[in-house]
Amino acid sequence: MGILKGKDILHGNQFTRKEIESIIKVASEFEKELKRRNNLPLLRGKILATLFFEPSTRTRLSFETSMQRLGGGVISMGPVEGSSVAKGETLTDTARTIAQYADVIVIRHPRIGSAKEVADAVSIPVINAGDGAGQHPTQALLDIYTIYKELGSLKDLTISLVGDLKNGRTVHALVEVLSHFGVQFYFVAPDILQMPKEITERLKEKACKVVETDDLVMAASKSDLIYMTRIQKERFADLSEYEKVKGSFIIDRTFLEKLGKKITLLHPLPRVHEIHPDVDDYSGAAYFRQVRNGVYVRMALLAMVFGKR
Amino acid sequence: MGILKGKDILHGNQFTRKEIESIIKVASEFEKELKRRNNLPLLRGKILATLFFEPSTRTRLSFETSMQRLGGGVISMGPVEGSSVAKGETLTDTARTIAQYADVIVIRHPRIGSAKEVADAVSIPVINAGDGAGQHPTQALLDIYTIYKELGSLKDLTISLVGDLKNGRTVHALVEVLSHFGVQFYFVAPDILQMPKEITERLKEKACKVVETDDLVMAASKSDLIYMTRIQKERFADLSEYEKVKGSFIIDRTFLEKLGKKITLLHPLPRVHEIHPDVDDYSGAAYFRQVRNGVYVRMALLAMVFGKR
Amino acid sequence: MGILKGKDILHGNQFTRKEIESIIKVASEFEKELKRRNNLPLLRGKILATLFFEPSTRTRLSFETSMQRLGGGVISMGPVEGSSVAKGETLTDTARTIAQYADVIVIRHPRIGSAKEVADAVSIPVINAGDGAGQHPTQALLDIYTIYKELGSLKDLTISLVGDLKNGRTVHALVEVLSHFGVQFYFVAPDILQMPKEITERLKEKACKVVETDDLVMAASKSDLIYMTRIQKERFADLSEYEKVKGSFIIDRTFLEKLGKKITLLHPLPRVHEIHPDVDDYSGAAYFRQVRNGVYVRMALLAMVFGKR
Repeated sequence: MGILKGKDILHGNQFTRKEIESIIKVASEFEKELKRRNNLPLLRGKILATLFFEPSTRTRLSFETSMQRLGGGVISMGPVEGSSVAKGETLTDTARTIAQYADVIVIRHPRIGSAKEVADAVSIPVINAGDGAGQHPTQALLDIYTIYKELGSLKDLTISLVGDLKNGRTVHALVEVLSHFGVQFYFVAPDILQMPKEITERLKEKACKVVETDDLVMAASKSDLIYMTRIQKERFADLSEYEKVKGSFIIDRTFLEKLGKKITLLHPLPRVHEIHPDVDDYSGAAYFRQVRNGVYVRMALLAMVFGKR
Repeated sequence: MGILKGKDILHGNQFTRKEIESIIKVASEFEKELKRRNNLPLLRGKILATLFFEPSTRTRLSFETSMQRLGGGVISMGPVEGSSVAKGETLTDTARTIAQYADVIVIRHPRIGSAKEVADAVSIPVINAGDGAGQHPTQALLDIYTIYKELGSLKDLTISLVGDLKNGRTVHALVEVLSHFGVQFYFVAPDILQMPKEITERLKEKACKVVETDDLVMAASKSDLIYMTRIQKERFADLSEYEKVKGSFIIDRTFLEKLGKKITLLHPLPRVHEIHPDVDDYSGAAYFRQVRNGVYVRMALLAMVFGKR
Repeated sequence: MGILKGKDILHGNQFTRKEIESIIKVASEFEKELKRRNNLPLLRGKILATLFFEPSTRTRLSFETSMQRLGGGVISMGPVEGSSVAKGETLTDTARTIAQYADVIVIRHPRIGSAKEVADAVSIPVINAGDGAGQHPTQALLDIYTIYKELGSLKDLTISLVGDLKNGRTVHALVEVLSHFGVQFYFVAPDILQMPKEITERLKEKACKVVETDDLVMAASKSDLIYMTRIQKERFADLSEYEKVKGSFIIDRTFLEKLGKKITLLHPLPRVHEIHPDVDDYSGAAYFRQVRNGVYVRMALLAMVFGKR
C-alpha cells in the first residue's frame, strides 16, 4: 500500500477515510497472522525509540510490544531521564540526538504541538503518543479498529461518548477519525464538560448528527456502543456537582439489565468508578480486547510507516 | 515433559518432588547447552512482562536475561511507573492490561497473595518474583539447583540455614522445596528470629529432622552446606542484642580454618557483613555461581511453562 | 584483527596508535554495511548490561542501539535502581552479580577509578562509560572517528578545544587519543579552566604543539576544527567573570561569516549557549553526525571485544 510510508502520525485529522480503512485492513491481517504464530519479523534490524516525558506505561508497553512482535528492537527514555535530559537542552536537540540512534520515534510530552515540533526537526518518522491536552492519534485508531471489530462495520453507527468530553484528548481524536463514517453521536456529559464547540461544528459539517445530553440512560437506549471516559474531580469547582455527575455516569450490571439490550462498552482505561468490575465478563465489555487491539493497530502503523504494508 | 505447561509459579509448596527433579534436569540441560552456544531460541516471538511494584534489580535482570537467552522479548514496568499506574487502578486491571501485550507475567509486589490474585485474573502464566513477606519460589528453585550441583546429589543432606529465619521468604520457600528430599536441618538463629512454628511442624511431618540452635560453629561442623541470610537491624528492639547476633553469625577465613573441613556456602545476596569478602575465592563459596544458576533455572521454568520442555 | 578481544575499555591512554586505527577501520566498515542493511548480527545471543549509577541517557541509548544493531540483547540497571542496589552492597558485589547474567558490562559511576575496580572484579569485558571526573574513552574514540571522517585524515591537524578544559573528562580522553597523531592544539579557555598541566606536558613530550589562549577568534582562524564544550556556571566564584567567558565563547552565524573560511564544529552535547542553533544547517556543523558516529564506534568496540573483528 505504501500510503503512510515515511509519514509522521501526529493528529487524528490527518487521515483520509481511505487511510483509516487501510490501517484497519492491515491491523486485521496482522491479528489473524498472530493467531498462527507469535511474531511477524517485518522490521528486523529496525529500532524504535520511546521518548516519554511523562509516564504512560500502557502506551509505552503497547508500542514496545508491537515493535518486538515485528522483530524490531527498542530503546527507551523514561520520564525520570526525560526530565534530566531536558534540563538545559531543547526538545529539538534531544530529538535530533535520538534520531541518530533510532529508525522511528514515539513521543509523549506534556506540551501541545510538541510531537509536531519534533517531527519537523528530524528526518525519521515520528509518532505522537500524546501531546498534553492535544492529540493521541494511535489511541483513536485502535478505538475505531475495536468499534469495527465489535460491531462488524463502521456504517450507520450510533455511538455515545460519555464523561469528560471537554478535556479528553482521546475522545477528540476519536471523533475526528469517526467523522469520516457519518456517525450519529450522543455526547453525554455535564454542561461544563461538554465537547468543545469547534469540534461539534466540524462534525456537523461532515454530516455527522450530534446530540448533547446529560441523560446516559436515554443515550444508551439509542446507541450501539458506549465509549466511557473518566471524570476527574479536579475539574469541578463544586464538589457536590462532581458527586452527582460521578453517580449518574456509572455502568454496572443493574444498568445493563435495565437497558435490556446488548450494547458494546469501550473505555481507554484506566477506569476508576465509571465501569463496575461486575460488568467485566459481560459479552459486550470490550475494553480489555480494546487494549489488545492497540498492539495490532500499532503494528500496522509501524509496518506502514516503514513501507512494509 | 509438559508438566508445568500453562501453569503459574506462585509458591514453594506447589511443586511435587517429580516436578522439582524435572526442573533441575531441564536447567542442567540448558546450562550444558549454553556452554556451547549463547542462546537457545525456544521462545522466539514470545514476550515476557516484568511487573515490579518494588525494586529488585537482580531478580528482574535475571528474568530478562533468561527470556532473552531463550530468544524471547521483554517489556518492563518499573517501580516508579508501578506506583503511578497503580494510582486509582486495581492491581487486577493493571495485570489484565499487561496480559494483552505479553505471553507471561513476572510480578513482584509488596502484598502477600498479590501474585495469586493476578494469576486468577489473567489467562497467561504468572510467575511470582516475591510477594511481600510471602513467597519467592524461583529463588528457592535456583537454591535447590545450586545445592544439587555443588553437592552432587539431594540425598542425605545436612544443611544449616542461618540468620533471619523468621522473616526471610527466601528460606521459607527453600525449606518447602527441600522438604521432599528428607533433609536434616539446622536452623541457626537467635530465638526472636527462629523459623515459624508452622513451618518446622510441617517439615517434621515430612520426615525432615530439625534442630534449632544459635550455635553456628556446632551446626557448621555437622553440615554439608551453610545457607547464610542477612539479619536486619530493624528487627531488634535492643541494639546490643543485634550487635551480639551480628558478630556471632559471620563467616570468614578464620571461621573456615577453625572448621577444618570443606563446606559449601550459599547466600541469596546482597550480603552485608555475614560473609567476609576474604572468603570469596574459597572453593566452597558458591554464592556467585548461585546467581548464575538463577538464569538456568528461570530459563527452565519459562521453557516449561510454554510447554517447550 | 582480534587485538581488543577480551579486553576492557577503561581509559583514553590505553590505546596504541595501531589500535585506534583498527577501531576507526572497523567503525568505518560497519557504517558502510549499515547503509545497505539495518543490522549486522555478529553478537546474536550475547547480552550487554548497562550499569548506570548516574543518568546519561544518550550514552546508554547509544550503547543499547549499538548492541541491538549487532543482534545482541540488553539488560539495564537505571540510576534509581542503582542507588537502591548500592545500598549496603559494594560496587564489586553488584558487578559480580551482573557478570553472571551478561557477557559485557558498560558502567557509568560517579567515582574515579570505579570502572577499573569493576573490571578487576569480573572476568567479562568492562567498558567505562564515564567514571566521574575521570575518563570516558568511547566518547574520545567517537570524537576521533568523527574528526577522521570530517577532515578525511588524521595527519597535520590543527584543532581548537574550547570551554572548560580543566574539568571536562571528554577533552582529557580526546587529547590522549589524538596525541598519537602529532596534532597542533589550541586550548581556548579562561585561565581558571585551562587544561591541567600534567596533560599539556605529556602532549608536548609526544610531539604535539600546544598553544593556550583565551582568544577564540585567533584560534579558529588557525584551526581545521573546533571542539566546543559547555562551561558550567558553578565553576565560577565570580559570576561576572562567568558572563564574560560565556559571551566570548559562542559560535553563531555571525562568527562563522567573520571567520570567512570553512571550519568543522564538534560538540559532545548537550549544548546550551555555546553553539547557536542558527549554525545547525552549516555544512561544517558535525555535532549530530558525531552522535551517529557513536553508534558505529561502539559497535566496532563491542564486536572487537568479542573477537568478532
